[in-house]
Amino acid sequence: MRAVSQCILFLINISLIAPTDTFKILIATDVHLGYLEKDAIRGSDSYNTLDEILKCAKTNQVDFILLGGDLFHENKPSRRCLHSCITMMRNYCMGDSPVQFSILSDQTVNFNTTQFPWVNYQDENLNISIPVFSIHGNHDDPTGSEGLCALDLLSASGLVNHFGHSHSVDKIEISPILLQKGSTKLALYGLGSIPDERLYRMFVNNQVTMLRPKEDQDDWFNLFTIHQNRSKHGPTNYIPEQFLDDFLDLVVWGHEHECLIAPSRNERQLFYVTQPGSSVATSLSPGEATKKHIGLLRVKGRKMNLQKIPLKTVRQFFIQDVVLADYEDRFTPETPQVNKKVEDLCYAKVLEMLEEAERERLGCPMTPEKPLIRLRVDYSGGFEAFNTSRFSQKFVDRVANPKDIVHFLRRREQKEDIKGIKLVKTAAAEGLRVEDLVKQYFEAAEQKVQLSLLTEQGMGKAIQEFVDKDEKDAIEELITYQLEKTQRHLQARGVITEQDIDTEIQRFRESKKNTTEEEDEIREVSAAIIKYFHTSSTHTEMHICFKVVLANCDS
Amino acid sequence: MRAVSQCILFLINISLIAPTDTFKILIATDVHLGYLEKDAIRGSDSYNTLDEILKCAKTNQVDFILLGGDLFHENKPSRRCLHSCITMMRNYCMGDSPVQFSILSDQTVNFNTTQFPWVNYQDENLNISIPVFSIHGNHDDPTGSEGLCALDLLSASGLVNHFGHSHSVDKIEISPILLQKGSTKLALYGLGSIPDERLYRMFVNNQVTMLRPKEDQDDWFNLFTIHQNRSKHGPTNYIPEQFLDDFLDLVVWGHEHECLIAPSRNERQLFYVTQPGSSVATSLSPGEATKKHIGLLRVKGRKMNLQKIPLKTVRQFFIQDVVLADYEDRFTPETPQVNKKVEDLCYAKVLEMLEEAERERLGCPMTPEKPLIRLRVDYSGGFEAFNTSRFSQKFVDRVANPKDIVHFLRRREQKEDIKGIKLVKTAAAEGLRVEDLVKQYFEAAEQKVQLSLLTEQGMGKAIQEFVDKDEKDAIEELITYQLEKTQRHLQARGVITEQDIDTEIQRFRESKKNTTEEEDEIREVSAAIIKYFHTSSTHTEMHICFKVVLANCDS
Repeated sequence: MRAVSQCILFLINISLIAPTDTFKILIATDVHLGYLEKDAIRGSDSYNTLDEILKCAKTNQVDFILLGGDLFHENKPSRRCLHSCITMMRNYCMGDSPVQFSILSDQTVNFNTTQFPWVNYQDENLNISIPVFSIHGNHDDPTGSEGLCALDLLSASGLVNHFGHSHSVDKIEISPILLQKGSTKLALYGLGSIPDERLYRMFVNNQVTMLRPKEDQDDWFNLFTIHQNRSKHGPTNYIPEQFLDDFLDLVVWGHEHECLIAPSRNERQLFYVTQPGSSVATSLSPGEATKKHIGLLRVKGRKMNLQKIPLKTVRQFFIQDVVLADYEDRFTPETPQVNKKVEDLCYAKVLEMLEEAERERLGCPMTPEKPLIRLRVDYSGGFEAFNTSRFSQKFVDRVANPKDIVHFLRRREQKEDIKGIKLVKTAAAEGLRVEDLVKQYFEAAEQKVQLSLLTEQGMGKAIQEFVDKDEKDAIEELITYQLEKTQRHLQARGVITEQDIDTEIQRFRESKKNTTEEEDEIREVSAAIIKYFHTSSTHTEMHICFKVVLANCDS
Repeated sequence: MRAVSQCILFLINISLIAPTDTFKILIATDVHLGYLEKDAIRGSDSYNTLDEILKCAKTNQVDFILLGGDLFHENKPSRRCLHSCITMMRNYCMGDSPVQFSILSDQTVNFNTTQFPWVNYQDENLNISIPVFSIHGNHDDPTGSEGLCALDLLSASGLVNHFGHSHSVDKIEISPILLQKGSTKLALYGLGSIPDERLYRMFVNNQVTMLRPKEDQDDWFNLFTIHQNRSKHGPTNYIPEQFLDDFLDLVVWGHEHECLIAPSRNERQLFYVTQPGSSVATSLSPGEATKKHIGLLRVKGRKMNLQKIPLKTVRQFFIQDVVLADYEDRFTPETPQVNKKVEDLCYAKVLEMLEEAERERLGCPMTPEKPLIRLRVDYSGGFEAFNTSRFSQKFVDRVANPKDIVHFLRRREQKEDIKGIKLVKTAAAEGLRVEDLVKQYFEAAEQKVQLSLLTEQGMGKAIQEFVDKDEKDAIEELITYQLEKTQRHLQARGVITEQDIDTEIQRFRESKKNTTEEEDEIREVSAAIIKYFHTSSTHTEMHICFKVVLANCDS
């Protein structure tokens, strides 16, 4: 049933699809290879799905594969991860089928991260049947003084064509790869992940240019791949679609995990945006529960058609919300044994999802048996959270994530009694998001002459001034905000190794002597430290923890 | 001068070298790619030399390259390291020159670590001009549940043929790659690094078999590559040459860093052994100061010729010993300003080495400018060590290792007054090495019912019982001994990740409750912890440090 449900979603007057003039492109993004690879149940999920994607490309005899970033989940993928990726690509993307398009642009400009600056299928030592073109994402972004990313290992091996890597921080010139198949001309633009705030500012300052072919500009189908926030995570913490040039025909938007692959038309810019979404759920949020697809894009002349292909190997994910206060006909916080009743309700809800999962899975042998299940329980109004570990036990054989099925939360409006509510209220009234508030807070703080070290404790204090300590999301959002802000700093300075952090801490100490001049410095350094707390492995965290403590002791 | 000094070292009646019947094999080992790669001066040394080696193979139009292990210095090479290696191999080993030998053996047996179990040059999707055959060393050995090593990434990419990986711990069957070029038949045996003590025991127990072709056994030239201790590091901590089958013609011995590439004949086994040595100095010991070479091996029929080729990119390394007591005509410990006189002497010695280095470097543009210099100063007899940091300052612009030029040491026989001297004396009398003593010590300790946790402190105590605390070498040797012993345990258990260590610590705690039964366990676990202290990155060290402290607190 599912296998034949590949519906043609989008069709603009392609009267006749002549294969020799039509580009067939497999579109996927955010494969996150290696995600949770040590998990006993889910460890192979990301691998199985990359295998499915590549196999699908081969079966459909596509001209090329286009990946929108985050092929790897970890910046430094494990050996297993690299090995599997290399093996799969060698298996599926090498072979005798001839590649039927040519490249007209200057390839030394297009492929500027390798000593082999030409498309892999034109390398006379490699027999490539399906070229893969990929930009990097924020997970697998370039690091170190060499500015290399995991993708560059595949690129050096000749298995991937890494493009869209901008080396300048002042100016971005996106030079398209110009492809021609028969009479169809395709200009492929790409921009690897850049911290959103920096890119936002660069767009505002006209520092981003998309170059265009000199001749026959109107003959080209213009395809752009980007890996940024599409939804607004903060006032300048995303890329508004209208920033993108209106000569574009289609934007393939990576980074956002929700599958919104059906092209949506931007009526202002008159281009379409397709958001394929991740091919593995890396969080248990509603966006990841949308059925996952990849796309088969056909381009002939300036016309296109995007066929969505459901992924069969993706683990099912069901999410439901329960508001306990809505069940007053069955129980209130005062009802005897209310906890038991709440637990029974949750149990029934989970069973319901499990049954739905089972029905859907019928006849889909490639779908993993145990689904992901998330029940969000709003226990505002005096209810208590029950013991989730006992609850988990009941589903240990049926659910892929038994330990975190239930997530208790309280609605924000319940917190009348909490310090800082005024700010939150103001925010709600003005339509501001928590991040905006955080930004306001920091902007106010910038006026002060004395700035305290924003260690995790300092951070905690800051946020306690306007939201409750238990409000985990707010803290996360604050950190996210600081992270984005810091990324510029880190990238500009090339802060990568421990040694770099030492240097930064040194700078920080010195800057403390000149607080009036060096306020920004302190904040940036602190944020850098915090970034490492939250984005690095346990080892690094501990290491930095040491350093911060030392820095505090000494100063 | 140096360039033309490639002398023919070894020639057995090769009356006429007909190219079509003669295998030309470039032999190198212990490239240690990535060694000190973050060092400002020496960071590119290992990269430059691999480049030289590969270029040399291409210039000499060899049939293949044979590497004896430790291509990579780190088990998990950095991105730069992998990227450079892939790039260089793709540059030098791919191309149109046809490979002129064929493979007669079952390649699925020979290349058992890849999903592409055939020699890379026969892969129809790769255009290989120089196949590289490599075993793994102890630095780049397989780890993790997948048993993959860094070499396997290159192998998956089709750039290296990784062979000699034995997957069994009970039985090793070495099946040769059978190569034929014209009338010459070459049986290529390989055995990737295995902990010496384990392999020693397996040899003793007849668990190691070298398979031979069924037909025409006498027609084959039998070449074996091994990566083990050749010099005796302990009674069973090396592989005696006589353990190896006497049907062999030539053994290429990796792991030992001293270049002893001229084949030496083992008169008992009637085979030859060549020890190419490392291509980069990874320690400042005398063995590394020997001029470094790679070999060009020609094999025709059962005859061979090994031409040694000096490496031009290797950083010069000079080492000298000074015994202060030998200068009694110039000073004694009582001489006024003796420290200054000693320092002047050392200064003169270093200058002497620097001048020698400069002379030798004349006309060698590929040799790095700053040499490695080591002056070992024996200050026994009442002399004092002088301030080396001031001394270093004088050579900071001329020496590649200014910080550790001078190494002070005291001769063992001077330590009459030191606790434990009896044991050392006995050892000297019986011709035993320190490691043997350590072994005796531990064997005695095994008799005891109560065993204390061998943390670093415990280790320190143990060694203090028979040698002075200042005797750094002894401590190092003890650790080395324990490491080798532990490797078996680690490999058998697959202890790789932090989680594994947690499990091991758990076992250790439990085993404390059953000391009589679990003595070995405790020692092994402790050694495992110690191994991590000494072989891992700073992060891991600190992490384990935490764990050990916690383990101690809890128990």
